[in-house]
Amino acid sequence: METFDLHILGCGSALPTTRHFPTSQVVNVRDKLFMIDCGEGAQMQFRKSRLKFTRLNHIFISHLHGDHCFGLPGLISTFGLLGRTAELCIHAHPDMAKFLTPVLQNFCQRLPYKVTLIPFETKQSEIVYEDRSLTVTTIPLRHRVPCCGFLFEEKSGPNHIIRDMIDFYKVPISQINRIKNGEDYVTPQGDIIVNSRLTKPADAPRKYAYCSDTIYHEAIIDQIRGVDLLFHESTFIESELSRAKETFHTTARQAAQIAKAANVKNLLIGHFSARYEDESVFLQEANEIFLKCQLAKEGLCINI
Amino acid sequence: METFDLHILGCGSALPTTRHFPTSQVVNVRDKLFMIDCGEGAQMQFRKSRLKFTRLNHIFISHLHGDHCFGLPGLISTFGLLGRTAELCIHAHPDMAKFLTPVLQNFCQRLPYKVTLIPFETKQSEIVYEDRSLTVTTIPLRHRVPCCGFLFEEKSGPNHIIRDMIDFYKVPISQINRIKNGEDYVTPQGDIIVNSRLTKPADAPRKYAYCSDTIYHEAIIDQIRGVDLLFHESTFIESELSRAKETFHTTARQAAQIAKAANVKNLLIGHFSARYEDESVFLQEANEIFLKCQLAKEGLCINI
Repeated sequence: METFDLHILGCGSALPTTRHFPTSQVVNVRDKLFMIDCGEGAQMQFRKSRLKFTRLNHIFISHLHGDHCFGLPGLISTFGLLGRTAELCIHAHPDMAKFLTPVLQNFCQRLPYKVTLIPFETKQSEIVYEDRSLTVTTIPLRHRVPCCGFLFEEKSGPNHIIRDMIDFYKVPISQINRIKNGEDYVTPQGDIIVNSRLTKPADAPRKYAYCSDTIYHEAIIDQIRGVDLLFHESTFIESELSRAKETFHTTARQAAQIAKAANVKNLLIGHFSARYEDESVFLQEANEIFLKCQLAKEGLCINI
Repeated sequence: METFDLHILGCGSALPTTRHFPTSQVVNVRDKLFMIDCGEGAQMQFRKSRLKFTRLNHIFISHLHGDHCFGLPGLISTFGLLGRTAELCIHAHPDMAKFLTPVLQNFCQRLPYKVTLIPFETKQSEIVYEDRSLTVTTIPLRHRVPCCGFLFEEKSGPNHIIRDMIDFYKVPISQINRIKNGEDYVTPQGDIIVNSRLTKPADAPRKYAYCSDTIYHEAIIDQIRGVDLLFHESTFIESELSRAKETFHTTARQAAQIAKAANVKNLLIGHFSARYEDESVFLQEANEIFLKCQLAKEGLCINI
């Protein structure tokens, strides 16, 4: 299987604690790295993760709260000091320019690479990134400011050829790509070998959905249905439900309800409020609704 | 002795490593806290130090490079979330406004306290803070952008009264402050008791000088002469002298030369370049010139 990993760089909420950094994650899809959110300290956590800075070309910022983007100035400066030349694309709400433009003008005059802000609207879902093997789509969320999650979705790959059958029918190399893409093989004698004798179906495309920050919001369920992994924020537990509503955040129980309703394969919760010293309460509460749940933690790497 | 401590929150240079945070320090003078520089992650390091956020009212920023100020947005936001009401004064080059104003406008609309930027000029020394027991004075440095160090200087305190003599002469309480300030005591019988019989001299005022970032710059020697502790940057060792000059930084040997020429009591070096895995080379080099030298380290607390 091709690489499709999630690395947690930070999973605290707005108030950093001695346990957590603010939000940042890196998704590794076939050795291309994608950062989701960039809270303060993300560059230090990135370095600790031993991932390669040079593999990162796209950063997706869910919303313009400091705990999701105050790590950008340091990261951008560091890339400059390291002599980066490749363009860095930052996908965010259009207002990101108000924060980043002064930083670039005042601190990054001689940056050896280009930083490009690519704005997206947050009211409806749109594809914000696409390459041969992946699409990234926004997931409109409901928070105090415009906010989107992100759905990382592999594209269907070609079928796998069955090496023994290819050898048996002496299929020439020139035909292999056609066969991978579903065509039958016609022998020099004119015999038709149906594709299903020559190939096995491709692996099911994998999906990762990131949903933070948001109030309990059932409208996302359709879009995240059946994903292999859902990261959902869980700032509070049910005893602080009114505080969760007031601040447009979610409880562990609600995150689990979303996971269950969307029939996701695995749930990862994070963005924990600083008030909880013992975070096992989040897991206990989520598990009452949804068993395949795990707590996010700095340094955690999940194979999707 | 009243508290006069230095806490190192970060002592790396521009490129953060897995060993170091960028520059930030806290000076604790009689339980008032003063921050010097505020690199990314300073608020997390502050929290780890177990110092009290509420005791911090003044931040001094040496110069406008990101590794000395990118921690400000997060720190300011966190103070807001914690319900701070006391004014926070940020002393810095006038251009700090270009960085902080957009942050305050876009991320801190409902901040429950006031952030006041107090600009200083960097070409000549000026007093930037003063209270009953302390002055903070800028130390003009030479770097690629306008830059100042800071001299923290206790004021001379009153003499210490000798309790036994006060009792012996039955000095009334109303006279104590005058005597502490050097006056003689006249008994009801008209006898003059000279002050030196009633008091011991006050403790010598203590001084801490912070000098970072700067090229080797002898002009600072007069101002820092005899300080109890000098923090001097030491980004490189002598084998990278040309690189140090080029980037307006100092070598460990040069820092020690400054310490020796200024006859300081103790030297602390930091702002280490990321290229040195083994930092004992800094200490070895400095010790050839100046013995009372120590390497800065995150979490270090020095009693001045």
